[in-house]
Amino acid sequence: MSLVVQKFGGSSVADAASVIRVANRIAKYARAGHEVVVVVSAMGDTTDELIDLAEQVTATPPPRELDMLLTAGERISMAIMSMALNDLGVEASAYTGSQAGLITDAVHGRALIQRVTPGRIRSALDKGHVAIVAGFQGVSHSSKDITTLGRGGSDTTAVALAAALDADVCEIYSDVDGVFTADPRIVPAARRVSVMSCEEMLDLAANGAKILMVRSVEYARRYGVPLHVRSSFSGRLGTTVSDDLDRVIPVDPDVTARISDVPRLDAADPSKELPMDITDAPGLEAPIISGVAHDRSEGKITVVEVPDQPGKAAQLFDVLASAGANIDMIVQNTSTTDDTVAISLTLPETDAPAAIAAIEAAKETIGFSEVRYTDQVGKVSVVGAGMKSSPGVSATLFRALADANINIDMISTSEIRISVVTDIARLGDAVRAVHTAFGLDAEQAEAVVYGGTGR
Amino acid sequence: MSLVVQKFGGSSVADAASVIRVANRIAKYARAGHEVVVVVSAMGDTTDELIDLAEQVTATPPPRELDMLLTAGERISMAIMSMALNDLGVEASAYTGSQAGLITDAVHGRALIQRVTPGRIRSALDKGHVAIVAGFQGVSHSSKDITTLGRGGSDTTAVALAAALDADVCEIYSDVDGVFTADPRIVPAARRVSVMSCEEMLDLAANGAKILMVRSVEYARRYGVPLHVRSSFSGRLGTTVSDDLDRVIPVDPDVTARISDVPRLDAADPSKELPMDITDAPGLEAPIISGVAHDRSEGKITVVEVPDQPGKAAQLFDVLASAGANIDMIVQNTSTTDDTVAISLTLPETDAPAAIAAIEAAKETIGFSEVRYTDQVGKVSVVGAGMKSSPGVSATLFRALADANINIDMISTSEIRISVVTDIARLGDAVRAVHTAFGLDAEQAEAVVYGGTGR
Repeated sequence: MSLVVQKFGGSSVADAASVIRVANRIAKYARAGHEVVVVVSAMGDTTDELIDLAEQVTATPPPRELDMLLTAGERISMAIMSMALNDLGVEASAYTGSQAGLITDAVHGRALIQRVTPGRIRSALDKGHVAIVAGFQGVSHSSKDITTLGRGGSDTTAVALAAALDADVCEIYSDVDGVFTADPRIVPAARRVSVMSCEEMLDLAANGAKILMVRSVEYARRYGVPLHVRSSFSGRLGTTVSDDLDRVIPVDPDVTARISDVPRLDAADPSKELPMDITDAPGLEAPIISGVAHDRSEGKITVVEVPDQPGKAAQLFDVLASAGANIDMIVQNTSTTDDTVAISLTLPETDAPAAIAAIEAAKETIGFSEVRYTDQVGKVSVVGAGMKSSPGVSATLFRALADANINIDMISTSEIRISVVTDIARLGDAVRAVHTAFGLDAEQAEAVVYGGTGR
Repeated sequence: MSLVVQKFGGSSVADAASVIRVANRIAKYARAGHEVVVVVSAMGDTTDELIDLAEQVTATPPPRELDMLLTAGERISMAIMSMALNDLGVEASAYTGSQAGLITDAVHGRALIQRVTPGRIRSALDKGHVAIVAGFQGVSHSSKDITTLGRGGSDTTAVALAAALDADVCEIYSDVDGVFTADPRIVPAARRVSVMSCEEMLDLAANGAKILMVRSVEYARRYGVPLHVRSSFSGRLGTTVSDDLDRVIPVDPDVTARISDVPRLDAADPSKELPMDITDAPGLEAPIISGVAHDRSEGKITVVEVPDQPGKAAQLFDVLASAGANIDMIVQNTSTTDDTVAISLTLPETDAPAAIAAIEAAKETIGFSEVRYTDQVGKVSVVGAGMKSSPGVSATLFRALADANINIDMISTSEIRISVVTDIARLGDAVRAVHTAFGLDAEQAEAVVYGGTGR
């Protein structure tokens, strides 16, 4: 029998009916003899409603009090989930983040986990109970105050508990069937990726894929926790994220399998293999691209006519650093007409005002002529572990965009990723064009990525 | 400067606007230099909504999980209240029952306070902060689980903190102006009592007055905490409950007064005395009755033809005790026709089924002929410390009911109370008739009760 950590997001526990539906899924694992730890987010829109309430009394809620307020959401869902399980005859008990031993620093709103001491969870499991844990929250050891982990915090709670309890798998349930080769709302032909490495998942997350927060994937990678990203609304298998394909994990109440075999399984009847034509066929034929990600949330700053002298770029980025701007892409092109350069960079739109002010303030020192800014940019990224060893990827990318008559504004590359910035109005077209160009559309062979192997 | 504990019920913090209104009241006390501890209930109908949610997933929520769920309500209101105060420039911080040091036993749903260790509250006050505390909740020292104190729990939280912090006064805010001589919804002429002793408040509470729970009054009496029951919707003074009329308490941000002087003060401008004709004139002329309480929640069991032998009543009440029935009134009348007696008793309707079953089961042993039950009874009680020393109170009571042609079913008396059971259909008439008979109607002299003195 295995120890399974299952995290259910807000849409999976939107109302009482959803909670009961999810409880029945959990009960199957418990009855099959697995040790089950369940991490829940707040129900549906609870968190937004609580934030609205706070905004009705103040424009500047103290972070400590805001954390006190928001954690009530998960407290409600964990109690309701525990009730639903007990009603099904499955012994369960609910624990706050503090009771579950999630010890954090005292930075309210985005606390970092310092250590996890899941003593109460372990003894609940030893008693044969399902342990329900409120996601997103912890307690500061220094201040004894309740803290929250920030965006995607419940995923981090689940992965942290899975690591501390040495779980066999951490299942992240949402309303989508896993990680797709692109956002299905933009690319109808997008398909699910069966298996990918942590690094590929990280690059997808870092480049706009909403399915998992970078932080929880980094945590899973560091502690070797296999993730299974799947839907609570279907019986289908999702996307397994792991660097160890030989690891054996439970994929359904009654089935365990080597991660590399997961794509071959039919979740409806996981005992039998899928017919090859709809299996993610592993091996050399596998496409080298695991997915196409996009991001609309960044803006572009261009600093014009920066003297082409040593140290100027350094000055610029010192200024940006002290302004607390999170810089993403950086491109510098030497002017052909004079001895100046233009430096372009992308950053979250929310960081832009402070960054621009800081640059303007340093105009004298740096000696540029002008700062330009636009938020009308979008970023398309193709991610795949096979990329670096396979020539022509960037050529295919640029050709696809050119054929679609989409102008490329900026380019940046990493070992396993190429990102381009385009006009936001053409972003959807760009994602579709690239998705097709790399053979990711549904009628083509399904994507599978074994970047995990060999690392 | 004084230490003031202020408890605000759900109707006082029903929505964001109410919270801001209440926050402004609290701010006045803080700015006047008082140390202020605020205890809040859940906002408006939050608790009912949470109970509804629980009922949607199970008919039998585990008590531990139900406590987890319900405590979220106060957690929301305490955080919002703290935000509202900070927004007004008043430094405040919110604390759960656990953080405030309310240590209870592990009986979920109706936990008893074992001790109060308000170290964090004390240091918050020392820092010049207003401390906001979630009412109704505590933590079990043995199980480390969150507990709730049951009905009226927030009042108990406030009184317990006031006792532990040696507060000068514990103000209980609701949507009524204090304790009235009868329920104003039934007796429009009912008026506010300015001052009463703990014992009188206890008898009113025990006999159906909803304004304060018996438990919190008992706690206040045991630890000598003066209570000030008042409205958060008006500037008026409320009802002071204390056995020590010489105690000096703050009654408004800028005014402290001897409790015996409180009735003389005009809350709108507490510096000046009220004109005598609307003052509660203390002294010998004071009516001896402090109020008329009523209770619709009890049923009546009559055990017919119990052998008139020693030990039969004992057998009956042993049986009732082991059935866990909370017996209120007991009346035994000897039959004139044979050597049997009829024993009638009142008890909460909810206890009746178990009690009746237990009595029936003991039919052989006790040897009665029949058990009768009705829930169509109501209880009217007149309460007043002066009573026992003043003849003719019962005569006045029975005369008033007779004149109103209301039949008396049962009678029981205590040192400071007479209760009668009548047909529930006539309960309202009975309360009005008695209220008038004892000169409590508004156009008559206002009631004041100094039962506290001499005790």
